[in-house]
Amino acid sequence: MSQAEEQRCAISPRRDQDFPEWYQQVIKAADLAEHSPVRGCMTIKPWGWAIWEEIRNWLDARIKATGHENAYFPLFVPLSLLEKEADHVEGFAKECAVITHHKLESREGKLVPVGELEETLIVRPTSEALIGEAFSRWIHSWRDLPVKLNQWANVVRWEMRPRLFLRTMEFLWQEGHTAHATEQEAWEESKMMLGEYGKLMKDLLAIPVIAGKKSPGERFPGADETLTLECMTQDRKAIQCCTSHYLGQNFSRAFQVTFNTADGGTEHAYTTSWGVTTRLVGAMTMVHGDDNGLCVPPKVAQYHVVIIPVLTQSEKNEDVLRACRALKEQLEEQLFDGKPVRVYVDDKDMRAGEKGWAWIKKGAPLRVEIGPRDLDSNSCVVAKRDDLSKEKMGVETLVGHVDSLLTSYHDRLFARAKAFLDAHVRTDIATLDEMKAFFTPKNEEKPEIHGGFVRAKWCEDRATEDLLKELKVTIRCLPFEQSGTKGSCIITGRPATCDAIFAKAY
Amino acid sequence: MSQAEEQRCAISPRRDQDFPEWYQQVIKAADLAEHSPVRGCMTIKPWGWAIWEEIRNWLDARIKATGHENAYFPLFVPLSLLEKEADHVEGFAKECAVITHHKLESREGKLVPVGELEETLIVRPTSEALIGEAFSRWIHSWRDLPVKLNQWANVVRWEMRPRLFLRTMEFLWQEGHTAHATEQEAWEESKMMLGEYGKLMKDLLAIPVIAGKKSPGERFPGADETLTLECMTQDRKAIQCCTSHYLGQNFSRAFQVTFNTADGGTEHAYTTSWGVTTRLVGAMTMVHGDDNGLCVPPKVAQYHVVIIPVLTQSEKNEDVLRACRALKEQLEEQLFDGKPVRVYVDDKDMRAGEKGWAWIKKGAPLRVEIGPRDLDSNSCVVAKRDDLSKEKMGVETLVGHVDSLLTSYHDRLFARAKAFLDAHVRTDIATLDEMKAFFTPKNEEKPEIHGGFVRAKWCEDRATEDLLKELKVTIRCLPFEQSGTKGSCIITGRPATCDAIFAKAY
Repeated sequence: MSQAEEQRCAISPRRDQDFPEWYQQVIKAADLAEHSPVRGCMTIKPWGWAIWEEIRNWLDARIKATGHENAYFPLFVPLSLLEKEADHVEGFAKECAVITHHKLESREGKLVPVGELEETLIVRPTSEALIGEAFSRWIHSWRDLPVKLNQWANVVRWEMRPRLFLRTMEFLWQEGHTAHATEQEAWEESKMMLGEYGKLMKDLLAIPVIAGKKSPGERFPGADETLTLECMTQDRKAIQCCTSHYLGQNFSRAFQVTFNTADGGTEHAYTTSWGVTTRLVGAMTMVHGDDNGLCVPPKVAQYHVVIIPVLTQSEKNEDVLRACRALKEQLEEQLFDGKPVRVYVDDKDMRAGEKGWAWIKKGAPLRVEIGPRDLDSNSCVVAKRDDLSKEKMGVETLVGHVDSLLTSYHDRLFARAKAFLDAHVRTDIATLDEMKAFFTPKNEEKPEIHGGFVRAKWCEDRATEDLLKELKVTIRCLPFEQSGTKGSCIITGRPATCDAIFAKAY
Repeated sequence: MSQAEEQRCAISPRRDQDFPEWYQQVIKAADLAEHSPVRGCMTIKPWGWAIWEEIRNWLDARIKATGHENAYFPLFVPLSLLEKEADHVEGFAKECAVITHHKLESREGKLVPVGELEETLIVRPTSEALIGEAFSRWIHSWRDLPVKLNQWANVVRWEMRPRLFLRTMEFLWQEGHTAHATEQEAWEESKMMLGEYGKLMKDLLAIPVIAGKKSPGERFPGADETLTLECMTQDRKAIQCCTSHYLGQNFSRAFQVTFNTADGGTEHAYTTSWGVTTRLVGAMTMVHGDDNGLCVPPKVAQYHVVIIPVLTQSEKNEDVLRACRALKEQLEEQLFDGKPVRVYVDDKDMRAGEKGWAWIKKGAPLRVEIGPRDLDSNSCVVAKRDDLSKEKMGVETLVGHVDSLLTSYHDRLFARAKAFLDAHVRTDIATLDEMKAFFTPKNEEKPEIHGGFVRAKWCEDRATEDLLKELKVTIRCLPFEQSGTKGSCIITGRPATCDAIFAKAY
């Protein structure tokens, strides 16, 4: 990289210098979020919130279209309810926010807790316990089934090493919870929702993923099966983008969710749960960002187009501003992805170049500059975020093509990420030693960027997963697309029963 | 009321028998929400959640249209931040959920809190402290102003006597927080948002209100002025439907929110905050419900129209169901209030009459029955929830008029509630003794329904508000519409300076 090119990069360090620090700097430069004064919690700023809001709006419509209703369960879980599902507690609810008092008193200018609670509460780390208890009261007969609920909520899991969006103490999510009369129906539900998440990843976030089921060691505590979508960050690690759990009868046994069958018997319901969280914003950043900042996939961007007036000749400033506002109105009449194009005119009192760089860092998909010399020809300069290319264009051409410009931008982001993923899934690694070497940085490599996904054979023995710990590698999933070929387990050398994806993960 | 009429009532007790218990029973019969196993918290069920969701969607669009952006601040507030605004703590943050530990450990089969926190946290009772701290870091210059943010969030205030929707430990709300360079701009903001809430009450919820400012004793702790909308329940009490606070420089002083002015000076910002909560669902229930259950204003109903197939002749059941589904599709192509009509076909395995009553109790605006005898004439029976009237109607007529049927239903609800409010605002009560008598149930009155709003003169002396305590009456507001006439204060007899509304309140 030449010095001139290096200067061009708005984010320091570059991705290949220090990826985790690059990530922090991108979030700061794009003004997505910040660490709050409460350790482990984050404040999501408007440009970051808008991304989550678009994810939520899109997914909420799909959740409803697939026959679910929204509801809302309490923030707090009493310990007595929590104690009912032992695996779940063991795996989940240990690191949490514990509420012991309900009052503060001023003593010598300091506030101190008073009013100790009779029963200790925790802030929900997930809502299986509360919803299991409710299902046990709501469900009596096969006529009451299926129950298909979802909630949008905040949850808290104590985090000692928080990372914005990817791992925060409080995070936002949706959690679907369903109960069914048969194993098959519940299993179909789990798969259907993973399918919806797949569309979310591809159609909305332009993120390619590998779909599969979790190995026993990586399953949700209390689940019979956990389905997942795994994406690859640009430092070649995995991010679990969502999970969909088939819980079998485990939670319905723990919470006594039974129903009278049509033929007069009694059975435990089959339940599922599934969720995506604000970590998707982190995944999106790590997949699409570059050395100049964020690249927001257009469908989740607060603004698709940012118009920047170039105000260099004061006698024409008003005309330029008028042209910008007129273009905004014209663009807002156009549709992208079936909805009006979202446009912002940045008329802040700053130089156009400075504003341009701010929007590059924030990753607005299209920037449009209009200056005094564009007025006569009714033209503008259109800049694309991904390749930073600029093109002079007639205003009418832009208006007529804004939909296809945004669509092809989305497609380019997806294609770029897909090529990266495909290039870094290795299928030629066959032994634990080779895997060790692959996941160990070599001297000539940048310390942070090495490895990738290893697709290899596995014997499905739970105990072997522990052998991966020293490599800091986990089985990300057993992909749905199995090769079906025979071979030896990469860990034990014994006859393998499946293909698995091995990787380091966030 | 005759025995036949009494039997018609689906809710027991009736409103005039025991209004608070009627309220609980309506919420249960309408399946809006329930008390959760966590004392003081509620579970909002789908029919109740949908109402809040429609409120949220409508208001969110207005919040954005008036120049605000959404963001999200953490759930937890450290005590050190809280201690900065003394009035605020004194008035607000005393009864709250206090987090002292971050871990659970199993000991002899029980979970016990371990890992005591270095700094105690509380669950936010409101976010002024967190947002004040953020504003102090984000705002430096007059160019950074105004900052106009909103968040949709859950908050917790410890409640010893919870009441579903009206007063729960956890509740959901939006809280707007803005900072401005001038007093006038902040003051205009407070008034503008109260105006938006006014449209919400009238246009969405069909609830008439009295708008005004709070007396000093009823103000938000730390505010210079609190604006409010007060509605009247059918037991003639007041509900505060929203508040919009002009905070002056109080919070910006407590949190050091300063900015450099254009002329080189430094000043504290002027801030506002404003919010509405899930209690609006309770207000709606108490204003519009009747002895047969809930009446949901159509714009916030999950379904505008519920179609009930009458399946009495098994050989025609399929035809009836087909006709119902065809009608659903036709209705969904119609618009009400600019959005597609929301329709549900209730094909559950129950008698039509039973289903009809279930939807009356839930308060669905329009019910449509189609039976085998309606097929040849392509007609149906349309029932309105408010007056329970039924009318035979051609299917085409219904489809062509569904918008006006829903609009006039909304208008009837508003007119009925407005007539009730107007009938129970008394202007002829002039002394504290008369007020005492007015607010004391007489022998011949039903114990729960008496009183109303008293509109009377007041001297604006803060100390006099305490004299109202023994009457369990408060000043609800000093209405914006002042008579301007002179007179004597109803409490002290001294010369009055304003008109005020006195009432008992939820």
